[in-house]
Amino acid sequence: MPELEFHPFLRQWVIVAADRQERPFLPSAGSCPLCPTREGGPPTEVPLASYDLAVFENRFPSLGGPPLATPGAKESTGSSQPVRASGVCEVVCYTDRHEGCLADLPPRQAGKLVRVWRDRYESLAAREDVRYVFIFENRGVEIGVTLTHPHGQIYGYPFIPPVPLAELEAERAHVQSTGGSLFGEWLAFECEGQAKRRVWTDGTTVAVVPFFARYPFEVHVAPLEQRRSLAVLSEGEMDSLAEGLQSVARAYDRLFDSPMPYVMSMHQEPATPGYEHAWLHVEFTPIRRDAWKLKYLSGSETGAGVFIADMLPEDAAARLRAVI
Amino acid sequence: MPELEFHPFLRQWVIVAADRQERPFLPSAGSCPLCPTREGGPPTEVPLASYDLAVFENRFPSLGGPPLATPGAKESTGSSQPVRASGVCEVVCYTDRHEGCLADLPPRQAGKLVRVWRDRYESLAAREDVRYVFIFENRGVEIGVTLTHPHGQIYGYPFIPPVPLAELEAERAHVQSTGGSLFGEWLAFECEGQAKRRVWTDGTTVAVVPFFARYPFEVHVAPLEQRRSLAVLSEGEMDSLAEGLQSVARAYDRLFDSPMPYVMSMHQEPATPGYEHAWLHVEFTPIRRDAWKLKYLSGSETGAGVFIADMLPEDAAARLRAVI
Repeated sequence: MPELEFHPFLRQWVIVAADRQERPFLPSAGSCPLCPTREGGPPTEVPLASYDLAVFENRFPSLGGPPLATPGAKESTGSSQPVRASGVCEVVCYTDRHEGCLADLPPRQAGKLVRVWRDRYESLAAREDVRYVFIFENRGVEIGVTLTHPHGQIYGYPFIPPVPLAELEAERAHVQSTGGSLFGEWLAFECEGQAKRRVWTDGTTVAVVPFFARYPFEVHVAPLEQRRSLAVLSEGEMDSLAEGLQSVARAYDRLFDSPMPYVMSMHQEPATPGYEHAWLHVEFTPIRRDAWKLKYLSGSETGAGVFIADMLPEDAAARLRAVI
Repeated sequence: MPELEFHPFLRQWVIVAADRQERPFLPSAGSCPLCPTREGGPPTEVPLASYDLAVFENRFPSLGGPPLATPGAKESTGSSQPVRASGVCEVVCYTDRHEGCLADLPPRQAGKLVRVWRDRYESLAAREDVRYVFIFENRGVEIGVTLTHPHGQIYGYPFIPPVPLAELEAERAHVQSTGGSLFGEWLAFECEGQAKRRVWTDGTTVAVVPFFARYPFEVHVAPLEQRRSLAVLSEGEMDSLAEGLQSVARAYDRLFDSPMPYVMSMHQEPATPGYEHAWLHVEFTPIRRDAWKLKYLSGSETGAGVFIADMLPEDAAARLRAVI
């Protein structure tokens, strides 16, 4: 069963999930575990002849096992003190068709996907062993995807992970010192004047290459008004979010006329009180910087934590706007 | 000229260096810019017919330009406030031979390399526009290396980067609350009893897969006694460090009988007072987890900041010990 170790120098949890080495690695279409179970064929993860969308627990989870008291703030010590990595890992199949991707789902299906995410967010956030519901998609073999069937994942972590926590704490500090919303002021800055880094908007949702982008063609998608989580979106806002995400994903694939490898991460209110100032948003971090060049994390990023952006965010936004 | 943007949500500097897109990308051996300048051939970065080791400024730097007051602690705001990315980027050629790597340098040459690092550490730390000297090596095309000639790099950042800063602050907090050294207590823990995660030692330097490893086969190499930087190492300690680094690098290449792609990062005392408790160490973060599988950073790592280790550190250490 997976365990957590506390990294005493970086002060963050590391998941140790040694059994995952044996997970399926790029199986052929005929033996895809995310496809429906075909008549006469071997059972897949979905024991149905067809389905619309499907959600189930990951067979090779990084988090799981019987619920456990969530690990609290930890003292740094020089010794190992593993705790069980409670929580949950789910798989979300976007469609029962083996081919395709987020970008080419029918708009109605993408809208359904947002509603499935909302349902899972609410269900998992209600669990005692979950402090943060993290909805994400890994896309492309270049990012380590081992199953190509269109799908995303949801992790229910037993703690608030470092990246959303840093954002939430920066937001909290700003609210406390100025009374205003940091995220809101940033969005207003990106949308003012010529809005050179704005990629797409329908007046409800906006997609922007942030001025602080760390990845080439990084895009953040967010509601223009503060919404702390999927749970508080209106029907129209859910459809708008789906359209924004699909618009960005489609532009990515057109950019180099090939599927763009990316991580798509949704950040929102944790499943623990005190973060009502959270502002729901989705971060796309693609890794192709040119038709034949990937963005690698190397010494400065990995060893020092300093990202080097190879492209002006205004240029990235202009190139995305040209194909959206 | 490269600029810095402050990421208001993660509260860290991002370097924007758009001109680096045009840097040489895997040139053939005959046009390697790090080889000596051959008689009748085009000039390379080193205008000599042969050399021992060579250090020069990177022609495609991520940091540079006229010295500038170093950027201080920054307020998070929603607006872009770029500042020039002052500092320096140097290239260190380990040898004038185009083939080879850290692992197969003659031991005397590896010892010289440590002395060159020390010289550069002291020179760059004395500059007004440098707050942190970061010595590192990117190894392997899988990690984004664009020049295969054996070489490493040195960045003189105008600020203390987030990763070493987090380590230094955790150490400082531990010293203040307990009086003891966190790093020293951790090394003692790794070396006690059967020392299942220790990979190599000569009694002066030790190489360990830390219990909190985030990458497969991650190894930290450090002096067993506290040394805050290269500047305070004795002659024997420098040779011992060189031997430790080469031993690890050699074991990596034997593990899968192919060159292991890795980042090697040296963390030590910043070029600013107040961090005398620093403990010099070198972190190897390799990315091959199996003969044909790389470790990718995907949703959990990129979007949430939670690393998932696919391997028990004890198993990684045992496999490395078997080939060291």
